[in-house]
Amino acid sequence: MATFQMSPHTYAVPMALFRKNRRNLCAALRGQSAVEQGTYVLLQGGSYVSFNDTDTSYNFRQESFFQYLFGVKEPRCFGVLNVDSGDSILFVPRHLEEYATWMGRLLTLEEFKAMYEVENVRYVDELPKFFENAYPKLILTLSGVNSDSGLRSEPASFDGIEKYVVNCDLLHPIISECRVIKTPEEIEVLRYVAKVSSDAHIKVMQFMAPGRSEFEGESVFLHHSYSVGGCRHTSYTCICGSGINSAILHYGHAAAPNDKVVKNGDMCLFDMGANYCGYAADITCSFPANGKFTPDQKFIYNAVLDARNAVLNEAREGVCWVDMHRLASRVMLQRLKEGGMLKGDVDEMLAAGLAGMFQPHGLGHLIGLDVHDVGGYLPDQPPRPNEPWLSKLRFARILKAGMYVTVEPGCYFIEWLMDKVLEDPDLNKFIVKDVYERFRCFGGVRIEDDVLITKTGNENFAIVPRTVEEIEKCMIQRNS
Amino acid sequence: MATFQMSPHTYAVPMALFRKNRRNLCAALRGQSAVEQGTYVLLQGGSYVSFNDTDTSYNFRQESFFQYLFGVKEPRCFGVLNVDSGDSILFVPRHLEEYATWMGRLLTLEEFKAMYEVENVRYVDELPKFFENAYPKLILTLSGVNSDSGLRSEPASFDGIEKYVVNCDLLHPIISECRVIKTPEEIEVLRYVAKVSSDAHIKVMQFMAPGRSEFEGESVFLHHSYSVGGCRHTSYTCICGSGINSAILHYGHAAAPNDKVVKNGDMCLFDMGANYCGYAADITCSFPANGKFTPDQKFIYNAVLDARNAVLNEAREGVCWVDMHRLASRVMLQRLKEGGMLKGDVDEMLAAGLAGMFQPHGLGHLIGLDVHDVGGYLPDQPPRPNEPWLSKLRFARILKAGMYVTVEPGCYFIEWLMDKVLEDPDLNKFIVKDVYERFRCFGGVRIEDDVLITKTGNENFAIVPRTVEEIEKCMIQRNS
Repeated sequence: MATFQMSPHTYAVPMALFRKNRRNLCAALRGQSAVEQGTYVLLQGGSYVSFNDTDTSYNFRQESFFQYLFGVKEPRCFGVLNVDSGDSILFVPRHLEEYATWMGRLLTLEEFKAMYEVENVRYVDELPKFFENAYPKLILTLSGVNSDSGLRSEPASFDGIEKYVVNCDLLHPIISECRVIKTPEEIEVLRYVAKVSSDAHIKVMQFMAPGRSEFEGESVFLHHSYSVGGCRHTSYTCICGSGINSAILHYGHAAAPNDKVVKNGDMCLFDMGANYCGYAADITCSFPANGKFTPDQKFIYNAVLDARNAVLNEAREGVCWVDMHRLASRVMLQRLKEGGMLKGDVDEMLAAGLAGMFQPHGLGHLIGLDVHDVGGYLPDQPPRPNEPWLSKLRFARILKAGMYVTVEPGCYFIEWLMDKVLEDPDLNKFIVKDVYERFRCFGGVRIEDDVLITKTGNENFAIVPRTVEEIEKCMIQRNS
Repeated sequence: MATFQMSPHTYAVPMALFRKNRRNLCAALRGQSAVEQGTYVLLQGGSYVSFNDTDTSYNFRQESFFQYLFGVKEPRCFGVLNVDSGDSILFVPRHLEEYATWMGRLLTLEEFKAMYEVENVRYVDELPKFFENAYPKLILTLSGVNSDSGLRSEPASFDGIEKYVVNCDLLHPIISECRVIKTPEEIEVLRYVAKVSSDAHIKVMQFMAPGRSEFEGESVFLHHSYSVGGCRHTSYTCICGSGINSAILHYGHAAAPNDKVVKNGDMCLFDMGANYCGYAADITCSFPANGKFTPDQKFIYNAVLDARNAVLNEAREGVCWVDMHRLASRVMLQRLKEGGMLKGDVDEMLAAGLAGMFQPHGLGHLIGLDVHDVGGYLPDQPPRPNEPWLSKLRFARILKAGMYVTVEPGCYFIEWLMDKVLEDPDLNKFIVKDVYERFRCFGGVRIEDDVLITKTGNENFAIVPRTVEEIEKCMIQRNS
């Protein structure tokens, strides 16, 4: 049985996972009226991306749709599916002998076939000839807009493709929908990478302390994920905010590179997820830098934790994701009111959009091969909500068993939003100003889990300390 | 004094370094007859690179020419130099208020000015207006072919640039030549990143052992470089080859991702270099996995070490780099002959191209902001040699004080090249076959230092154990 495995100590991903994905896609396509007998799918794998005009490249990671169907490590491949039979043909680049000097032994086509458990392997330069012999009635290539980035994927092509009937639009929503529902095999990879990431988060919590720089925590995370978990890549840039930086939602980028020294009294918000065989984790832990919550930290943390618990109690097949966002917002505002920061009617607060001033992002998103996975706003699914405080939601669907989502309520004190709240009579009437102002430099709290939706409930793959007591107990062990 | 510094424990790069680079470039340009009064340089900084069509990007690193002149962390900037005065104007993107929510506090133009010590800062959308008021006689943009990649850099542009006299070819060789000779300020950054990388290599040597996976060593390197040295990036993909993989020159890429388990008796060849503030290190250590050289390992290692020592003894201003390659090859072949692997006349071996079958790559390359730095084959410099065994050299220049180069002789047993040698009567006459065959699965040895050329000699910034005795002593400490 062929597998992907970084070392004998890391998870062995069966290549059968990708074969099943191919079969599922072909079955879904055969259900389409536009897909007649003799239809083929043609996909292009990713290529090296040069660092500007130099001869160094970013570390290659396979393009996600190609990874979904083929699980292939090599760049510059193509893949073809015979929709009728479900059989696959992988097309690999033909290399010169010198490849062996610089890149490693040239594999035979038979070796590729065994390594990836595809039905056939050929060289990329044989694509035109392959289709000449196959007499395709229809070739489906992949083009569609990613609803998170707004970017359109470029359809695969080859010399002579204009001779055939090609449809580049039909495939995208169907393969995206296939990716939304995870197979049991995919679930086990996702469980693994979430566990590796969880353990790495625990290492980080036990490492961080006042005086350390934020990026030292990032480095601990990366080191555990890679050396123990075999995860060479993360799923996104690590967000390691402390103090006021913990209120910057995408902190950690090049211009704000996790370079603050953590101070005593800071909250830390560390949002990091490893990647294994293309599959993503996306976990956030929020904790006090010194290991002991202050009353104010506990107040905000528990407001977020209660919102998270409410969602985990409710999320299951059949539930509307927008309702989950509303639920989390309602619970959080209720707790902020109970703690004395807000006053008035929580329903009115919600109607006024106050929740979006504390949590400007959506409750969570689909996750899988991409951290913001495809399938958010497909043609047949509910569109993006119009209300400003819901419009950041990355999907608005009815949950189905096999969906894998993040649940990530947060509460942030973002200075310019605080000022907007205080200036706006429709919002400031809910604010107890002296309490609110006390949190101006607090930063923020986010609690983010990776959750598999089931028919009767859900399963959380993020295994990290979550209550105040669990976190304090975990962090005390750093001195032992 | 403004600096770039990841933490109080890491090197503070003065922004004056980049100001000096700008002044040096302007002085060089003023020496050109084509550069009249009223000439401006316009450069475009790097942008985010999306991971395919998703909303995640590769971790941003500044484009090297832009980094050289401005040292700016932010993507999507432009820079302008007034060649007459040497003054600079940095153009930064204008962000919406929401930037503060997602990316961090919006800096004022004054803050950017102070942070980067430029003479002026404006918004990118003000570029057209700036040039309207400046009445430039000539705008120099940057386009030229990188001699290592063959890729051409794209010249900067803005709406309305067609109204001006623009030259996009003149700048490239001049700015490249400026980058070849390092300033004292640059030298200190290069010394720092080489020291961080050296220390990380020592950690790796003391960590590796039979039973560990190659990538665990990579992870140790990355962790030390980042958490201690503040180096978030490496300068190239880490090459961590063991056993037969140590003969694959660019091992470690996505299709051969350092995933072999290291075996007792393996040689390890680990080629890794950190990156700090854009500046690169590129160091290779070769060592026995179990910490103790076998006689065969010692034989090959010392042949390479003697070649390296011969070069370090000779390299200085005025010496031809091609001669250094010849010297290293001669010494290595001589030692292989003395050890009983080769027979016959070393000059004849060199003339027959035998050296290239043991070391298919050049002796070294310029290094600076890019690991294979610009300036290798500029128009006024010696062209790439024609002889196959010299044609891989990345430059063929007469050394000058302030050049910074790698010295990296290597000796590899690459199966298909060994077979070519054994089949070729012009080569196999030098081979003692049974000795040669004994090394078929040996892999390879490379010793790579980062060396500053001076008027009277050179200085090696790679501070790692190099002799057999030093390496064995270093590795014995791993058990303590």
